Amino acid sequence: MENAILAAPGGADATRFVLVGTSHAGNVGAAARAMKVMGYGDLVLVRPRHADVTAHEAARAMASGALDVLAAARVVDTLAEALDGITWACATAMTPRDFGPGTYAPREHFATLAASAHRVAFVFGPERTGLSNDDVYRCHACLSIPAHPDYGSLNLAQAVQLLAYDWRQAQGGWPVVPRTVDARLADGAAVAGLLEQWQRTLVEIGFLDPAAPKKLLPRLQQLLNRAALTTEEVHILRGIARAIHERR
Amino acid sequence: MENAILAAPGGADATRFVLVGTSHAGNVGAAARAMKVMGYGDLVLVRPRHADVTAHEAARAMASGALDVLAAARVVDTLAEALDGITWACATAMTPRDFGPGTYAPREHFATLAASAHRVAFVFGPERTGLSNDDVYRCHACLSIPAHPDYGSLNLAQAVQLLAYDWRQAQGGWPVVPRTVDARLADGAAVAGLLEQWQRTLVEIGFLDPAAPKKLLPRLQQLLNRAALTTEEVHILRGIARAIHERR
Repeated sequence: MENAILAAPGGADATRFVLVGTSHAGNVGAAARAMKVMGYGDLVLVRPRHADVTAHEAARAMASGALDVLAAARVVDTLAEALDGITWACATAMTPRDFGPGTYAPREHFATLAASAHRVAFVFGPERTGLSNDDVYRCHACLSIPAHPDYGSLNLAQAVQLLAYDWRQAQGGWPVVPRTVDARLADGAAVAGLLEQWQRTLVEIGFLDPAAPKKLLPRLQQLLNRAALTTEEVHILRGIARAIHERR
Repeated sequence: MENAILAAPGGADATRFVLVGTSHAGNVGAAARAMKVMGYGDLVLVRPRHADVTAHEAARAMASGALDVLAAARVVDTLAEALDGITWACATAMTPRDFGPGTYAPREHFATLAASAHRVAFVFGPERTGLSNDDVYRCHACLSIPAHPDYGSLNLAQAVQLLAYDWRQAQGGWPVVPRTVDARLADGAAVAGLLEQWQRTLVEIGFLDPAAPKKLLPRLQQLLNRAALTTEEVHILRGIARAIHERR
């Protein structure tokens, strides 16, 4: 089963994503994709508007390569059912006005949560209305994604993506493979040789006055230092200086 | 002009988002929304598949409340034009095989970039093919979003959302308003009083044997300490104990 590859490093990842009352099938598919790119595969849908949403065309289109996550999604009637086996449910919502769990920024909350033994779920409400207070009361924390105070309206799948990303980062992250080629960086002697050659060339063409060199050479040195030349680039720049010398 | 509110704290935010050769109008709209929720408003489109994409129905639907960002987007023919005024262009791509800028995880790159004076652009390639090498060569860094090694295929707008979020966080972030009500937390004396009342009640109903109390009271104390009771909750729990006592 392909979901096996979606276990986190360590193998014990039971993180669940719960979408409550989602209206747009496309959002369900996009959420599945957002989860899978961060290595999560446990999706539960509470009373989606389309009961057959996991087979819906728009959902499948937006899921792209995450059709397996979409197909494996459970559809249930209540948030209580969706949270079986979960010990810490994070509502993406504001704390209700009367009482409820505290509201935290995801990154700060995840720093401690990732170190705990909790089996975690993220709970997302309907697109237009958000989670009901009754559903928030079932949760242990409210997460608020820090967005612009005047326009904080994230698309549902975007919110899933941001939390999946931050949670994966808190869990240690996936590696970024640099894919940088072996750059054969030029050492100081190579750069000094290049500068000496250019110094002679610049005197030859009358750009540098040896009697009043000012700070031209140190300026060029700093430019080359910032550029962190490769040996190939040293060859190119020496070749240019040589061509100037030979064509005079 | 509404974009005025999209300036970063400090007022000098010139961060630009450049979408090259985008095929799906919906992605352009979703990108505009993703930018705006993080407080960015400068969107440039290089040769989009639909020249009139900013007026396209799917783009407008996905932009939602970010129609102003969409409407203000510039459409240009080349990446060079898109990068006018920019001093540090980050390609969302892998470094080409032969040479090119180094590849970094966004969060680590942003830590230093946010402290620099650079005017920054993020450059995103076409959905299917990604950026061409020629376009990557114009850039100063390659950013790779750390995703699952076996399925790292982020939707374009999701990539925009993640970078906008991480970059905003690196620039200091937006505040999360806790909105927690004044919880009137119960102090140690209130909790001790509650425990004493329950101790009497538990003896009354025969659950606690005073001759062999074991660790029941300290266990309940720890449960209540973790729960961090409010004074209102102390009242509720004392009321329950009183009701048990009175109905016997």
